Amino acid sequence: MKHDVNYTMLTDFYELTMGNGYLQTGMAQRVCYFDVFFRNVPDGGGFAIAAGLEQVIRYIEDLRFDEEDLGYLRSKNCFSPEFLDYLRDFRFTGDIWAVPEGTPIFPREPILTVRAPAIQAQFVETYLLLALNHQSLIATKSNRIVRAAQGRPVSEFGSRRAQGADGAVLGARASYIAGAGGTACAMADLMFGTPATGTMAHSWVQMFPDEYTAFKTYCQVYPTAATLLVDTYNVLHSGVPNAIRVFRELGITDGGIRIDSGDLTYLSKKARKMLDDAGLPGIKIVASNSLDEYIIRDLLTQGACIDSFGVGERLITSKSEPVFGGVYKLAAIEEDGTVVPKIKISENAAKVTLPHFKKVYRLFENATGKAMADYICVHDEQPDFTQPLELFDPEATWKRKTITDFTARPLLVPIFQNGALVYELPSIQEARAYCGREVDSLWDEVKRFEFPHNYYVDLSQKLWDVRAELLAAKH
Amino acid sequence: MKHDVNYTMLTDFYELTMGNGYLQTGMAQRVCYFDVFFRNVPDGGGFAIAAGLEQVIRYIEDLRFDEEDLGYLRSKNCFSPEFLDYLRDFRFTGDIWAVPEGTPIFPREPILTVRAPAIQAQFVETYLLLALNHQSLIATKSNRIVRAAQGRPVSEFGSRRAQGADGAVLGARASYIAGAGGTACAMADLMFGTPATGTMAHSWVQMFPDEYTAFKTYCQVYPTAATLLVDTYNVLHSGVPNAIRVFRELGITDGGIRIDSGDLTYLSKKARKMLDDAGLPGIKIVASNSLDEYIIRDLLTQGACIDSFGVGERLITSKSEPVFGGVYKLAAIEEDGTVVPKIKISENAAKVTLPHFKKVYRLFENATGKAMADYICVHDEQPDFTQPLELFDPEATWKRKTITDFTARPLLVPIFQNGALVYELPSIQEARAYCGREVDSLWDEVKRFEFPHNYYVDLSQKLWDVRAELLAAKH
Repeated sequence: MKHDVNYTMLTDFYELTMGNGYLQTGMAQRVCYFDVFFRNVPDGGGFAIAAGLEQVIRYIEDLRFDEEDLGYLRSKNCFSPEFLDYLRDFRFTGDIWAVPEGTPIFPREPILTVRAPAIQAQFVETYLLLALNHQSLIATKSNRIVRAAQGRPVSEFGSRRAQGADGAVLGARASYIAGAGGTACAMADLMFGTPATGTMAHSWVQMFPDEYTAFKTYCQVYPTAATLLVDTYNVLHSGVPNAIRVFRELGITDGGIRIDSGDLTYLSKKARKMLDDAGLPGIKIVASNSLDEYIIRDLLTQGACIDSFGVGERLITSKSEPVFGGVYKLAAIEEDGTVVPKIKISENAAKVTLPHFKKVYRLFENATGKAMADYICVHDEQPDFTQPLELFDPEATWKRKTITDFTARPLLVPIFQNGALVYELPSIQEARAYCGREVDSLWDEVKRFEFPHNYYVDLSQKLWDVRAELLAAKH
Repeated sequence: MKHDVNYTMLTDFYELTMGNGYLQTGMAQRVCYFDVFFRNVPDGGGFAIAAGLEQVIRYIEDLRFDEEDLGYLRSKNCFSPEFLDYLRDFRFTGDIWAVPEGTPIFPREPILTVRAPAIQAQFVETYLLLALNHQSLIATKSNRIVRAAQGRPVSEFGSRRAQGADGAVLGARASYIAGAGGTACAMADLMFGTPATGTMAHSWVQMFPDEYTAFKTYCQVYPTAATLLVDTYNVLHSGVPNAIRVFRELGITDGGIRIDSGDLTYLSKKARKMLDDAGLPGIKIVASNSLDEYIIRDLLTQGACIDSFGVGERLITSKSEPVFGGVYKLAAIEEDGTVVPKIKISENAAKVTLPHFKKVYRLFENATGKAMADYICVHDEQPDFTQPLELFDPEATWKRKTITDFTARPLLVPIFQNGALVYELPSIQEARAYCGREVDSLWDEVKRFEFPHNYYVDLSQKLWDVRAELLAAKH
């Protein structure tokens, strides 16, 4: 499998025109701080799941312009020769902090911070957002679907409806980190170790003179754990009886059937009874067909007899909300070694940014291990978490609460320092296990699909003051 | 720019388990016909736009398993040694017909047909669907947005919110074919020649001591056609006045401003008046911020003074409907040289397939050049289109209509014959021009965004009879 792609040119053209501008006006080396953060949790949920950091790391390490790129840029007739020369040796020399993949994340808090010379920090915007937005979107959706299934395995089946090849492969990766048990996508398994499995298509059944022969042939080829697709003609009058006949004739007790259309609750209950009556309690029922967290929740509420779910288009595109709105905003610049906070005000109140170079802590209640709040402060603050901490709502500052007996964990960890990777990437299995633990640390009220509690993301008094001051000054 | 990817392994695992099954049961070489078709036009529109064929062609040409792939498959312990040997020399040796990229397409009709030995025809399912579904989705959405803009240029700005790198790059490609004027994505321009352009980000403005200096510096670097982003602080009280000051000081009369937040109708009207009053009628106004065809239509209805649109997330993900539901279904198999039609019945009436190896014609009225209907018949029919043709609704067969004085054009063209590419790919500019002409050939009633007329997709009597017979037999 060849997969040799360099994404340096996957950038909005304006990153390049601005870079040329920074270079020509002597601002290229001014050190800047940019934050990645998002404003709304998809689907009205209480939290999102961060993913895509591994791809960000590969991108940063691979950053370089080759002669073809430079020739293309030259042909646009808008870049100075100095800029094109500069790009020839372009490398990332700055610092990056980020939350590990699988971390539950909340609106407004930085999930990745870049500190680098302006020309570099600006340039990496497009790909960083693309990688984090895409995989965080799919991880967030996958985690909802997995939670709806209440412990039953969920397989990602959506390659054919994905938005491009990376949509399929990296979508399978993100969904696995967030709890899916596997994928149908062989390439994702090969590249990332997300276990690939599969059943059969309707075409297999159609290819034979009749359904019974199709099933029997399949089970003879795959005598262990064959899953037969039973809805090509009629689930209850043809598919299930033929499956039972084949399982009994061949003595198969650990296979499965898949139902891909019709009323899944009704059909699965009837099929379960037919299988049990035939002495086949070990045969599992897999359901698929435009599933998502809402339909799975409904199926289980209705008592559907389904052992596992194959979820396609609504997972791999996050169909109900297919955009994760992460943004990349200037938070500060350095002037003579001093960090000067910057704000973007905008016409829309929701688009006002959180200024300054910041740190984020997640505060866990010691008695329960549950996450109580995230706490954002200025980079040079050293909060004493052994003392009671007063939290306040940054929008409604009169709402205050003092917490005690908690443990604070920094949320952002160092990834690059002076251009060098300092982070040891976990295996995908480790990231998946970490995600599971971190989601378990959230209160059930935050995990509701609809109208979850707002998890507290609070600012230190110092950070709140900086923001108020900049807002008053209007830049 | 390195982009060396082989997508052979981008397949659902079951294509491989079925392939192994076909080989072990002597069915691998049985010739099959599969159709790609779709069931519903996204967003309730009257037609979709086909795209992605170029990627299908590259995929078919590149199909091969390398040692890494074979080692991976061997490690799964479910494939026979004969199958792994067979894969070593796996190539596509069949035939493919497809509609050219940019063609308006309608539900139920084949947009691509594969004729190949079962093991090959089955295997290519996943990637073919992925490529056609993704790009047809984005092309369809792009065409809606471009039509809403009524001749004003639309630029695709969505890379940062795309579902993966291919989502960005191939999405830019598909949106250009369907009528967008360009993209922000440099990699798409470099790979496919979709013109890349850009303006500036808020961070440019924030990087300077004040907005005036930021604008002036930018215009000094780019004295021709600079587009200044005017909403970092306040559009009407700061952004537009500073832009006017800079344009006048530097004698720039052909630049632009971009408004990215707030009430775009109100702000654009006020900004237009301020620019005109300042003697700058040639300065263009670009609008962006979560636009789509509905918002653009509303803006223009309200008299917004906008000269061009930058459209991001709602185009690059087709946010309002992010899945194109193309499917790949067995239509026939060959037995002793005879084509035997096959049908899939399913529990859901909408999922019943159209059997047989088929041809599709588009019928154009000679008097107007407008497309009147598509006509699907069995491969060996030779309809005499010089004679009046009776069309009938395949669902309501009593609705009949006889048409005369029309020209019939085959919709599917040969792409591969015996594994060899026989199709000359048009340039992307040719595909874009073709798309524009073909959309022009549709009646306005079919082009409505909501409640369009149903375009006729009718079956020949022979094809209808075959389908009725298979439905009655139910196997």
